[in-house]
Amino acid sequence: MTFPVVGMVGGGQLARMTHEAGIPLGIRFKLLSDTPQDSAAQVVNEVVVGDYRDLDTLRAFARGCDVITFDHEHVPTEHLRALEADGIPVRPGPDALVHAQDKGVMRARLDAIGVPCPRHRIVADPADVAAFAAEGDGFPVVLKTVRGGYDGKGVWVVDSVEEAEAPFRAGVPVLAEEKVDFVRELAANVVRSPHGQAVAYPVVESQQVDGVCDTVIAPAPDLDESLALHAEEMALRIAKELDVVGHLAVELFQTRDGRVLVNELAMRPHNSGHWTMDGAVTSQFANHVRAVLDLPLGDPRPRAPWTVMVNVLGGDYPDMYSAYLHCMARDPQLKIHMYGKDVKPGRKVGHVNTYGDHLDDVLERARHAAGYLRGTITE
Amino acid sequence: MTFPVVGMVGGGQLARMTHEAGIPLGIRFKLLSDTPQDSAAQVVNEVVVGDYRDLDTLRAFARGCDVITFDHEHVPTEHLRALEADGIPVRPGPDALVHAQDKGVMRARLDAIGVPCPRHRIVADPADVAAFAAEGDGFPVVLKTVRGGYDGKGVWVVDSVEEAEAPFRAGVPVLAEEKVDFVRELAANVVRSPHGQAVAYPVVESQQVDGVCDTVIAPAPDLDESLALHAEEMALRIAKELDVVGHLAVELFQTRDGRVLVNELAMRPHNSGHWTMDGAVTSQFANHVRAVLDLPLGDPRPRAPWTVMVNVLGGDYPDMYSAYLHCMARDPQLKIHMYGKDVKPGRKVGHVNTYGDHLDDVLERARHAAGYLRGTITE
Repeated sequence: MTFPVVGMVGGGQLARMTHEAGIPLGIRFKLLSDTPQDSAAQVVNEVVVGDYRDLDTLRAFARGCDVITFDHEHVPTEHLRALEADGIPVRPGPDALVHAQDKGVMRARLDAIGVPCPRHRIVADPADVAAFAAEGDGFPVVLKTVRGGYDGKGVWVVDSVEEAEAPFRAGVPVLAEEKVDFVRELAANVVRSPHGQAVAYPVVESQQVDGVCDTVIAPAPDLDESLALHAEEMALRIAKELDVVGHLAVELFQTRDGRVLVNELAMRPHNSGHWTMDGAVTSQFANHVRAVLDLPLGDPRPRAPWTVMVNVLGGDYPDMYSAYLHCMARDPQLKIHMYGKDVKPGRKVGHVNTYGDHLDDVLERARHAAGYLRGTITE
Repeated sequence: MTFPVVGMVGGGQLARMTHEAGIPLGIRFKLLSDTPQDSAAQVVNEVVVGDYRDLDTLRAFARGCDVITFDHEHVPTEHLRALEADGIPVRPGPDALVHAQDKGVMRARLDAIGVPCPRHRIVADPADVAAFAAEGDGFPVVLKTVRGGYDGKGVWVVDSVEEAEAPFRAGVPVLAEEKVDFVRELAANVVRSPHGQAVAYPVVESQQVDGVCDTVIAPAPDLDESLALHAEEMALRIAKELDVVGHLAVELFQTRDGRVLVNELAMRPHNSGHWTMDGAVTSQFANHVRAVLDLPLGDPRPRAPWTVMVNVLGGDYPDMYSAYLHCMARDPQLKIHMYGKDVKPGRKVGHVNTYGDHLDDVLERARHAAGYLRGTITE
């Protein structure tokens, strides 16, 4: 058999769902996981438990893999270069991935290729933040550590020079950004292969609660067609210019004055693309696998007029399984995706997808199910 | 966590695809597999390698499982009773499963509940076959070993008393059946849960080549609506009367005079239901898992006007992966499902699904892809 071996670094839910999507292709899937209990490690046959920050561990894992890809963006760049030097394809490669790891590098590069971003600058200390504020419309200002943040962590919205002290305490570089006056958040998701083929999923609306993605609506309702096309083209251009391989999520602000600005980049399957599992001809996970194997990409178009994804966060009830009875009986079309994680308050432990012809109905069904699973709805 | 553990006996492709469908539910999936290389064993985390014919092995496997279900129908009835005596739910249970294991028992039961079957009778020797033939329209007559046959194995079509000797050589009971004058084969697939809920998939047309399923068209084209409903009701009634839990495939002959007769029963996910993976709201595998866990069943309705499944059999080219480039580039909507099996001529190693609005197009795409993967089309 000549079927390839895909090695995935990281045992989270993205790896779990990538494995699920890879099974039909008949490929072998190897996992490097922090623990044997990680979300993906529960469902994959070939699991290596080890620390991705240790080069020897990574190298031993990569031996026998035809390609290495990622559940997260935390593998040190120098390790990725070492794997490449060993002759292992790393997709996305370190030169692309750094833009998803370092917000300073990302902003500089997007500026250079003319992609619109919020006003921004690396700042040295609270006084510099005050200067940055004064250069624009004043406070509030958004401060971000250039590395390591996600789901609202490593991000501060500060209203004064005093409040600007906290981000500097860790001693890591800090990026200041204008607080964008946005009407909503969008995401443009694309997948690109090494030989340069790329596909764009419809632009979606992403609703955050407390800095964490809560609801995704595909396609984004009432989005001007030219703006949607502009966002898709922008994401495709970023993927090409940065030589991304695999899935690229471009998180966007839609501003009150009708522009789109890039908020964040993620170079892996992304929460804003989970709707594709049940709502698109080819899911983001299936296309990510195809891309890292340099196979032709699958059709990214939607299968229904509307698809809605709502995240299931951990709540006060640890027993989500008992909620299945109600949720499945109420909605036989409901798609539940649980990650095998212990329930902790606020932790993403799963998501639900619904699809159909009428957005109101599709949205209500997804929200009800997610709320019932979490325990905030008990009807 | 209170998520249950499903134990599946048998490591074939049905187990592989059941695992794939179970991942989103967050359940644990344990496999009892003949070898570590079996189709499902390659993709499941918790694999026990052992012989399902050995009761101690089965018992040890079942310990810690919340329910036991099957990739095949070969587990001895007395072993299943022993597991039940140990307090492990076995789904489908031994009293149901025997009807899929023993064609003599199946025919007697279907007669008793008034379900139409081909004329049939257990025969003792070749002379008895001649008598059976004389009672009807004469030869040819179909002879089947009552246990152990599948995919045309254990089945003979005999034209004379001399040809009727072979089936008796094994010394096992033989069932004689009239050779039905059928216009095509159909399959009515239903899923039933322990609390009695049942769903019916649309009746499909199943085309065989050399006794092996080749193409399935969902729904069966030009099928009279009342006959379709009659077939669905018949399958639901069989499921209820036989107390089936899980997926039940009822293979049917559509006769020239407009009746449907039951050919075979299978109590597990079935080749005639593979189209549901991409063509139905809820796949047969997802509904089988729900059923054995006594969860509410998912919507069985189709997502597209037409879905076609074509099996990929092993041919002369062992390297199917290299055919992906052509197949995926030619048809970005193509769904490939490969089982991780070594290619041997005539062996089922995968299937493809296509769906869309126009049957001709959907059929052509599936046949082209399957032929190209097999190596019989090289355009």
